Amino acid sequence: MTRRYFDWAATAVPDALTHPGSAPFGNPSSPHGEGRAARAALEEARARCAAALRVKPEELVFTSGGTESNAAVLFSLLRRPRRPGEPDTAARDAETKGAELLYSAVEHPSVKENCTVLAELGLRCAAILVDGEGRVSEETLAGALKKHPRPKMAVIMAVNNETGAVNDLPGLVSFIRGRPAEKTAQGVLRTHIHCDLVQAAGKIPVNPESWGIDSASISAHKIGGPRGAGLLWLRKPLLPLVRGGGQEGGIRPGTENTAGALALARALETRADPAALETAREGAARRMEALIGGLEKTGRCILIPACRAGGSGTPSGGGLRFSPWILQAAFRGRHGIIPGEVMARFLDERGFAVSTGSACSSAEKKRPVLEAMGIDRETAFGGIRVSQGWSTAMEDIEALTEALAAACGEL
Amino acid sequence: MTRRYFDWAATAVPDALTHPGSAPFGNPSSPHGEGRAARAALEEARARCAAALRVKPEELVFTSGGTESNAAVLFSLLRRPRRPGEPDTAARDAETKGAELLYSAVEHPSVKENCTVLAELGLRCAAILVDGEGRVSEETLAGALKKHPRPKMAVIMAVNNETGAVNDLPGLVSFIRGRPAEKTAQGVLRTHIHCDLVQAAGKIPVNPESWGIDSASISAHKIGGPRGAGLLWLRKPLLPLVRGGGQEGGIRPGTENTAGALALARALETRADPAALETAREGAARRMEALIGGLEKTGRCILIPACRAGGSGTPSGGGLRFSPWILQAAFRGRHGIIPGEVMARFLDERGFAVSTGSACSSAEKKRPVLEAMGIDRETAFGGIRVSQGWSTAMEDIEALTEALAAACGEL
Repeated sequence: MTRRYFDWAATAVPDALTHPGSAPFGNPSSPHGEGRAARAALEEARARCAAALRVKPEELVFTSGGTESNAAVLFSLLRRPRRPGEPDTAARDAETKGAELLYSAVEHPSVKENCTVLAELGLRCAAILVDGEGRVSEETLAGALKKHPRPKMAVIMAVNNETGAVNDLPGLVSFIRGRPAEKTAQGVLRTHIHCDLVQAAGKIPVNPESWGIDSASISAHKIGGPRGAGLLWLRKPLLPLVRGGGQEGGIRPGTENTAGALALARALETRADPAALETAREGAARRMEALIGGLEKTGRCILIPACRAGGSGTPSGGGLRFSPWILQAAFRGRHGIIPGEVMARFLDERGFAVSTGSACSSAEKKRPVLEAMGIDRETAFGGIRVSQGWSTAMEDIEALTEALAAACGEL
Repeated sequence: MTRRYFDWAATAVPDALTHPGSAPFGNPSSPHGEGRAARAALEEARARCAAALRVKPEELVFTSGGTESNAAVLFSLLRRPRRPGEPDTAARDAETKGAELLYSAVEHPSVKENCTVLAELGLRCAAILVDGEGRVSEETLAGALKKHPRPKMAVIMAVNNETGAVNDLPGLVSFIRGRPAEKTAQGVLRTHIHCDLVQAAGKIPVNPESWGIDSASISAHKIGGPRGAGLLWLRKPLLPLVRGGGQEGGIRPGTENTAGALALARALETRADPAALETAREGAARRMEALIGGLEKTGRCILIPACRAGGSGTPSGGGLRFSPWILQAAFRGRHGIIPGEVMARFLDERGFAVSTGSACSSAEKKRPVLEAMGIDRETAFGGIRVSQGWSTAMEDIEALTEALAAACGEL
């Protein structure tokens, strides 16, 4: 049976991966010849990643993946020292009991779950609501900042992993930075803005530097690289919670994964090259438009959110509103909305791999992202995620559309 | 120039590594065919690791390496809940202000540095001293437990990464477990004993289950496996600080590194197989004995500790006293003790890779392990670490001995 893979948001079909044995094997922290060769390879990988992301090499920290990158930023809040001139906590608490950490209600579990942990440990945390399209809007952000005017950190993802909704990061950052609370006389209460780029880097244009964010997370295996490799971009170094042997500027301890770093560099160069990315994105947009068009014709598809009808690949207004790589939809069968798990199994048996929710929360039987958008429970549990990649062909889209139509007739 | 590698404790010369592309690429959390294939491979890797370590598969958590495994255990202290029947903290504090976390004074930075972080966050931490041979002894442990009778956790490494000193874990565990403080009426104050096995697993016999410890860390790249893969053995699940997508029983979030897990399984099977390990250990002991004998003949060598004179590979009394894979020594040159860095550079230029201290603390210009053993500062800074591996030949040992003797005449 031909397999057609539509779960690229869970993990991409890997490129021809760099063999780990092809990287210098030495420990990059060792001063001898073997160590220096490994160090040179690691720094070459860092420079290549930096060039692809248009940031400075010294701003990049190699990690084991997106989850670790997100956690490193969040847990640094436990150690964040008071900066000179900054009012002490007690004084600030007297001013406001607002949250210290804000995060969008649709963040990936590697952000959201850790916000829960931080709240348990006494940090004041609050969610930024999203609108019906699954996006943080100026209105929802303004609402959060009204209640919580002086957050130390705000976490807003670039592309939602379940719906593909794209946040207008430059606009949201301007909004946060433009408030009087950020412009106090002390000038010291700058909110750290962290952005999960895992579903964005290499898939849509990203520019952490010009967006004005302070940190960003990237995962290698979502863009054709290997497992166990990721990046954390930091405008300024942070004080990490986890320490160890002092590797990666003291920010990410553990012997550096040189082979993983080189493979990540290659994946980023391949995917984030502006011309290549634009070609790939346009192709994805054409296929996504065809998919949405085909699904609408069945008369059985509930696009989530509904505004994706008519295609979503074309920039509208301020930029891309949805990633052309991800679609969430539910389907009406013979007895009402088909549960997502039933649909996913039906498709799997016919050679199509799609997911319900994110792989990272598949065990939990919850659809918090869709619920945060105000999607009713039945539709939410009917939702499947279709995510495509650079080797997805129009023929795959046609086959999937037919299979989905067949499912609606049979289930 | 022939390179002779004597820094296996920093990282091993890798075996023929598994190509990451040869593992099923799916996300093991995905329920579709690609995901199930990846899950099966991951669980196969877990079962093979468990067999090699003689533990249960469900007790093993795949991590990104030894540093992360150690950190996961230590930082779980921030979330450790009060168990039913356990006196609350205030009540316990009234009883004793002793430390909640004890760690041996010669632990790897991935333990020690995080103890410092935990102390900053308010946890009461204290070091267990080591004797002049670099080992936690019953006396030093008794001293620590006298001052700190009810630690929640005690961290004692199996093999020191700088000196090769082997701790008698079964004996130390019995000592901790046999105290009245562990046998309170409540029966609930069992100290969690964590053991860093990074320099032990696959190199000397280890048996976490029968030793009576509660958790242990293992790194793949120290035994010929790839970077970015490690294991955490847990007798019972712990409450992790870092959460995310619920992978690895909720204990280690992030998409699982299937290829890394398979490669780690192969490395463990190769190295920890009892017969293969015994053969390798005997070979290492013979070479170490030859090295020590040769160095003693130069009349310029200060073995650290001095008791390694006469060979250290043979079990004495309760078991192995030093790992035959690691030696620490300083050398007298023409103008006194040769600084370790000068010696390491001299050797590197002649094709030998040795280290000073651990690669993980090479940037810090400190020798805390040797200082904890009471080694004077000049000798400590003269110390180099020679660590061998399974492909080290007697000829390499002879060449190194000659080069060291030459250095003593020239430097």
